[in-house]
Amino acid sequence: MIELAQRLIAGDRRALARLLSHVENEREGVEQALAVLFAHTGRAYVVGVTGAPGTGKSSLVNALAKACRARGQTVGILAVDPTSPFTGGAILGDRIRMRDLAGDGGVFIRSMATRGSLGGLARAARDAVRLLDAAGFDLVLVETVGAGQSEVEIARAAHTTLVVEAPGLGDDVQAIKAGMLEIADVLVVNKADRPGAVNTVRALKAMLELGHPAARSQMISHHGRLMPAAAPVNGEENAALWIPPVVQTVATEDQGIGELLAALDAHRAYLAGGEALARREREQIAIELTDRLRDTLLAEALAALPPAALAALAEQVQARELDPQGAVQRLLAALPGR
Amino acid sequence: MIELAQRLIAGDRRALARLLSHVENEREGVEQALAVLFAHTGRAYVVGVTGAPGTGKSSLVNALAKACRARGQTVGILAVDPTSPFTGGAILGDRIRMRDLAGDGGVFIRSMATRGSLGGLARAARDAVRLLDAAGFDLVLVETVGAGQSEVEIARAAHTTLVVEAPGLGDDVQAIKAGMLEIADVLVVNKADRPGAVNTVRALKAMLELGHPAARSQMISHHGRLMPAAAPVNGEENAALWIPPVVQTVATEDQGIGELLAALDAHRAYLAGGEALARREREQIAIELTDRLRDTLLAEALAALPPAALAALAEQVQARELDPQGAVQRLLAALPGR
Repeated sequence: MIELAQRLIAGDRRALARLLSHVENEREGVEQALAVLFAHTGRAYVVGVTGAPGTGKSSLVNALAKACRARGQTVGILAVDPTSPFTGGAILGDRIRMRDLAGDGGVFIRSMATRGSLGGLARAARDAVRLLDAAGFDLVLVETVGAGQSEVEIARAAHTTLVVEAPGLGDDVQAIKAGMLEIADVLVVNKADRPGAVNTVRALKAMLELGHPAARSQMISHHGRLMPAAAPVNGEENAALWIPPVVQTVATEDQGIGELLAALDAHRAYLAGGEALARREREQIAIELTDRLRDTLLAEALAALPPAALAALAEQVQARELDPQGAVQRLLAALPGR
Repeated sequence: MIELAQRLIAGDRRALARLLSHVENEREGVEQALAVLFAHTGRAYVVGVTGAPGTGKSSLVNALAKACRARGQTVGILAVDPTSPFTGGAILGDRIRMRDLAGDGGVFIRSMATRGSLGGLARAARDAVRLLDAAGFDLVLVETVGAGQSEVEIARAAHTTLVVEAPGLGDDVQAIKAGMLEIADVLVVNKADRPGAVNTVRALKAMLELGHPAARSQMISHHGRLMPAAAPVNGEENAALWIPPVVQTVATEDQGIGELLAALDAHRAYLAGGEALARREREQIAIELTDRLRDTLLAEALAALPPAALAALAEQVQARELDPQGAVQRLLAALPGR
């Protein structure tokens, strides 16, 4: 593992691919490799791309990658897909669309699947981003399928989060929009050549105005809860709030990609201009440390409990002899040193 | 709170509504009410309804509720929606479609929103189902918007999980299908009057066949990881595996709803026929106890750590002086009694 890490740093793409597989499969020993590589991270700029199904995220990621390559940046792409024991891995259909990027050594594309664990997806994605970062890619694009809570967590871990919409996707999509708007740094209306694009742009702008800009400073999730962010320091350069721009694109025709890149660059400059980028990174690290602490504490507790304790209490709860919180109190009492 | 719980048991709908709000807002004291009510739960049959946006889940839930009312069952409906600080709550558009159920005392409809916490959504939904259960509803329908991991967790907590598809939703939906198939007990192709319905049914059946049925026994998530389920006991009545049927519906026209109800009843009978239902419930309770134990351990640890410890370590990690796992080791070492 340590040797793989060293080869990754030296630019060996096969070492990168193997370590990505190890992260995905939660292989033992991968933690040591990540610990070694961690000192080499923090250089890549990470852009999360998320949105409802059918918005054309993959085509947009494709177009963005091509545009960044054209200006000399290397690009790592991580596509986080749902998975199924039926198929044994990620669905590769979307990847096929990226065929015109294949053969370019400055681009690395990887689909990542997970095995149904709630926190596992976000964690594996975070570690995979670190691998791409340590491997030296200038830009890492993280594409998530779907609009669930864990996808939101993945997008939040990026520097800049791009939320993709498209005209005419039906009523359900309206609901998703609301949840997605909260995390957007840049909004994209893709498939902007379709009927209804103007209405979609107008609706998004109206929703953005609905939320008073000051509300955005309250949105940072910490320890899995919403908490007010640190108050902006007076005199801080970029104390001004960022209002997400709405960019129209037709990704399959490379239309609007220049404007989109400009919007991403503007957000990056905004973040870098003051304390915002450092604060965002620090908050993400605090969340990660908290998550890891929680997992470690649980693993220790489960190892310390008598093997049958959990199953026995689950049976009592099932029989309604005990309520769940009461059962947890008994588990805590059964831990050594209490 | 305790008084509200008693009024809920006595059939007071306003007490139910208020407790649902308290669960949604994580109000202090709601745990005591839930502890009191817990002994009155375990009677409702819980059906999870999930699927990609645009499949017509709400209309299907509406049609199912009407059909169950027609045969004398009372129905509680919980629609779990994404939320946004912009709008301050759930999007109610879908609810409007359910207008023809309003005014029927045997139906209770509730939209539930959450505030961006990863585990919070699943937990609030579980508690809300318990409230509806304790309030005496025969059937509880839990509708989730989206196809993310936490929605999957919510659906998994149901007795029977219904996954809704629709023809012609584009490529992205294919990817979601794979992740959803794994949790489906019954598959519905809604909007079956649309072109392409036959292909959608055929594709679903092909995907079901791809996965060898025996694989399904390996799919139960435990402690957030996939583990092999308990081996079927020889001679157990329903040791035969359940193959998810594929039902076609046009929910807005009440077409196929009878067949769908029959499929749900068949799955319920299958579960009740042997140890499967009890095992499924016990596994869900074990997962819940583990989740609660983890949250409690973390809360205790954060309270016991010096206030600035986490922030100081996050800064060291940000400066790459320390890797994340190393920082967690220091947090653990700083806990009293170690």
